[in-house]
Amino acid sequence: MRWNGWGRDGDADPLAGRDDVWPWLAAQFNMPALLATPPRPLESIDLPAPRLPDAARAAFIAILGEDRVRQDAQERASHALGRSYHDLLRLQSGSFRPTDAVLYPRNEDDVLAVLRAATEREVAVVPFGGGTSVVGGVSASRGGFSAVVALDLGGMNHVTGIDMVAGTADVEAGITGPELAQQLSARGMILGHHPQSFEFSTLGGWIAHHGTGQDSGRYGRASDWLADVRVATPQGLLTGSAAPSSAMGPDVTRLMLGSDGVFGVITRARIRIRALPEREVHHGWLFRDFASGIAAIREAARDGIPHTMLRLSDAAETRFSRVYAALGKEPGFRERVAQFLLDIRRFDDNAAALIAGFAGSAREAARARRRFGAIARRLGAMSLGEGPGRRWRERRYALPYLRDPLMGQGVGVDTMETAASWSRLPALYAAARSALEQAMRNTAPCEGANGIVLCHVSHAYPDGASLYFTILFPRNLNAEIAQWRAIKQAGADAILAAGGTISHHHGVGEEHLAWVEQEKGSLSVTAMRAIKRVLDPKGILNPGKLIPKD
Amino acid sequence: MRWNGWGRDGDADPLAGRDDVWPWLAAQFNMPALLATPPRPLESIDLPAPRLPDAARAAFIAILGEDRVRQDAQERASHALGRSYHDLLRLQSGSFRPTDAVLYPRNEDDVLAVLRAATEREVAVVPFGGGTSVVGGVSASRGGFSAVVALDLGGMNHVTGIDMVAGTADVEAGITGPELAQQLSARGMILGHHPQSFEFSTLGGWIAHHGTGQDSGRYGRASDWLADVRVATPQGLLTGSAAPSSAMGPDVTRLMLGSDGVFGVITRARIRIRALPEREVHHGWLFRDFASGIAAIREAARDGIPHTMLRLSDAAETRFSRVYAALGKEPGFRERVAQFLLDIRRFDDNAAALIAGFAGSAREAARARRRFGAIARRLGAMSLGEGPGRRWRERRYALPYLRDPLMGQGVGVDTMETAASWSRLPALYAAARSALEQAMRNTAPCEGANGIVLCHVSHAYPDGASLYFTILFPRNLNAEIAQWRAIKQAGADAILAAGGTISHHHGVGEEHLAWVEQEKGSLSVTAMRAIKRVLDPKGILNPGKLIPKD
Repeated sequence: MRWNGWGRDGDADPLAGRDDVWPWLAAQFNMPALLATPPRPLESIDLPAPRLPDAARAAFIAILGEDRVRQDAQERASHALGRSYHDLLRLQSGSFRPTDAVLYPRNEDDVLAVLRAATEREVAVVPFGGGTSVVGGVSASRGGFSAVVALDLGGMNHVTGIDMVAGTADVEAGITGPELAQQLSARGMILGHHPQSFEFSTLGGWIAHHGTGQDSGRYGRASDWLADVRVATPQGLLTGSAAPSSAMGPDVTRLMLGSDGVFGVITRARIRIRALPEREVHHGWLFRDFASGIAAIREAARDGIPHTMLRLSDAAETRFSRVYAALGKEPGFRERVAQFLLDIRRFDDNAAALIAGFAGSAREAARARRRFGAIARRLGAMSLGEGPGRRWRERRYALPYLRDPLMGQGVGVDTMETAASWSRLPALYAAARSALEQAMRNTAPCEGANGIVLCHVSHAYPDGASLYFTILFPRNLNAEIAQWRAIKQAGADAILAAGGTISHHHGVGEEHLAWVEQEKGSLSVTAMRAIKRVLDPKGILNPGKLIPKD
Repeated sequence: MRWNGWGRDGDADPLAGRDDVWPWLAAQFNMPALLATPPRPLESIDLPAPRLPDAARAAFIAILGEDRVRQDAQERASHALGRSYHDLLRLQSGSFRPTDAVLYPRNEDDVLAVLRAATEREVAVVPFGGGTSVVGGVSASRGGFSAVVALDLGGMNHVTGIDMVAGTADVEAGITGPELAQQLSARGMILGHHPQSFEFSTLGGWIAHHGTGQDSGRYGRASDWLADVRVATPQGLLTGSAAPSSAMGPDVTRLMLGSDGVFGVITRARIRIRALPEREVHHGWLFRDFASGIAAIREAARDGIPHTMLRLSDAAETRFSRVYAALGKEPGFRERVAQFLLDIRRFDDNAAALIAGFAGSAREAARARRRFGAIARRLGAMSLGEGPGRRWRERRYALPYLRDPLMGQGVGVDTMETAASWSRLPALYAAARSALEQAMRNTAPCEGANGIVLCHVSHAYPDGASLYFTILFPRNLNAEIAQWRAIKQAGADAILAAGGTISHHHGVGEEHLAWVEQEKGSLSVTAMRAIKRVLDPKGILNPGKLIPKD
């Protein structure tokens, strides 16, 4: 991955030549224009020298060999931070602290030995998978220590066993989405965890931040597909029971879900895998408004209609996507027919688009699609056919690539996500939207300018659902960090006050730390601290994440 | 519940007049006869005086009032132990230590105040729901303290709110199965947690031992239907996030699942409820052998065929049930036709009976039944229609009532249960059966006598299933506790060695304590101890359960 943005070096700029976008966005923001803010190249940045003590460096080299202990600028910078907006602001402006070294363990024993050495030498260790955290989960924070190293698990990317009878696979934690998918599909199997970061993020990271993929309706979230996990701690190896379901007391290994690596380094997992579906189909629907779309999702979730995803954009996101897609094009025959249909059926600016995904045998997928279609029609929705779903599928991992070019033209982009019960969802949606809009107005670079809030429901449960907010706003170049912080604070406070969780699938990291105690209560934090003390007595693991300071 | 057995005082003896049973059982055991061993009445037992210090008693009375602090013999004896075979041996012979007092809190505040007072006065507290634990989960152990009290949550049995939009209910932890079912069904809803102890056990107990009900295929186990929980600890109230799905770090409240009340007292839970199904049907199948029945269950679980239960008896349990049901009856026309069908289709002594339950809309239930039927037929099973399921349903909570009369006639009865991955299940089954048979022979009261092992699969998951063993054996009246312990040890060791969990749904309590560290690893135990220390610093809560001594 690029050291300071999304994608690989040499990837094309997806907005190159789209000169129509910028004046349109400026108008949306009620701004006269947007200022170019290109990122600084690494060569122009004066990185502080690494502070890793010689004795610690020698100890790591003794374990891993010299070529697995890296201290060049590229490595140190690319392991400095994750990929939150806050991270990118700092990376692209060059005001960040790089990690002091990057270690590449080959196996679980290496990890255990590194943790012992780091404990002895008092060096902070940040477990590092794909580095795609959007909540400051991998920031190179030293805590109270003199140095910090990133422990990059990229070399631990092997599938060590597949049990076709039980339907499980044993996999090292550093494997990325595509590497895992390739090895499983060779056996006709799939995990089905498809977060937007799929191309870069790793199995260990999915567990450590308790992730959820786009197809969670069928494949579940990390807690659903995780059968067992092995965790290297400074005190040794933490293991669980391999039984599919046990009542032998509380399962401490489940606490690794969302642990941000502060208790230990996830080295391997046993994951539940399934046969590749014979058929997968996505069908688009247009609802008259967000509320009737939500009602349809709730009914489908409660009735247990099998689906991979039910993704419903609110009116703003629906309009925004439609206008954005049409920018700079003359409407063709297809678009004019579509508009005519919308008009005669009296769909207006409140319309909300939904993409419903179904998978399984051809018969199962068709049946589930019919069942959902019956609900959608009864609630007044209009079928959009398979086109929108096909287009969504082609671009399912594409959105993060837009952020860097947007940021380069003075546009701030961030996301916040939450979940709440069905009964609290409408008020939560209204409160969070309003708080975010207000905060973006308050922090805008000029009087009267505003930001944009887009929202969708993307994961549904019998008792509630998630909301995913995307915000776009004109960067306030004089006070960018303060602007981001004020918007984040306003959104998070509103979410918590309305009974939502501060994160449905992004995790805690550094950026949600301030709300942990308020959401989880002080005794939960006390318990987390107690576990941290016994598994990582010196506190070397990922300082500053998850657990608020005592 | 009876102070020393199952059921209520005055319930009829289900084996009264069944004189045909005893010689038949004696012959099964290869014993000349069985000796009557009636339980001792409470009046004949000289209970030790309560040791609750006056100051502690006064403190409890100040909180609860005099009539909620009970010390009469009936109360003290009926809160002394749970309902394991080991418990019943001691209760029925009169050699047990009763609790020193029974406290009846009215609400969460009472519980918090009692825990503070007990911490201050150094009195052990055993959280007590239905008292039906079969693993020593509620034994009145004093630990290192001078006295122990049972905290009976029977008065905290209110449904405090039902959210029909979210499909959740807020319920106090002391509610029993029937009380809860009645209040939910008045709103057209159901939890669906139906353990064999349903009539007596409580919501808090289901969570504290991480229980699973007979209909778990549809309604899940405690971890599936538990949305949120409130736990009173000596350090205050532990609460969780009410969001349906959160990534805000590890969820400490999930550790209450299987906690045996050693961290705190579960006072309330938010549970996921569903609409009462329109239709529920049970269908019987006869497989040629246990292995082909297991194959059918595995396929159904992997294909996600909706079911409430798939309960498959092994050949021994199938034969035993059939012969037992026919005892003392002349075979009628129906039975002769059945036997004729079995003969011409070449079903032999290896045959294994399965009861499959389906629920939902009439159409859904019918469809699922057809889908499972197709698998069963393909694997050589013969349909037995709805009769076996109807008979099972009528007697779904009846089996524990047989234990007391059996024990009264010299028959030992115990159960063990486990779960393992599909790939390990066959070897685990063989090893556990053989170990149990061997141990029962070794500990039999006379040379050449033996016990009986019956087994069924009752809960299936995509990656594995549970096995439930029932053992019957002639009581060795000179060394009953040692006999029980030897059999238990042999079974548990075999299960663990074959990759199973020591308990799939009974929990840990005192009786599985010896295997906790072996199954979960020492770091899991270290972490549990750390949590215990911060939530219950004096260690007053349920001493001797779950966490092995340091």
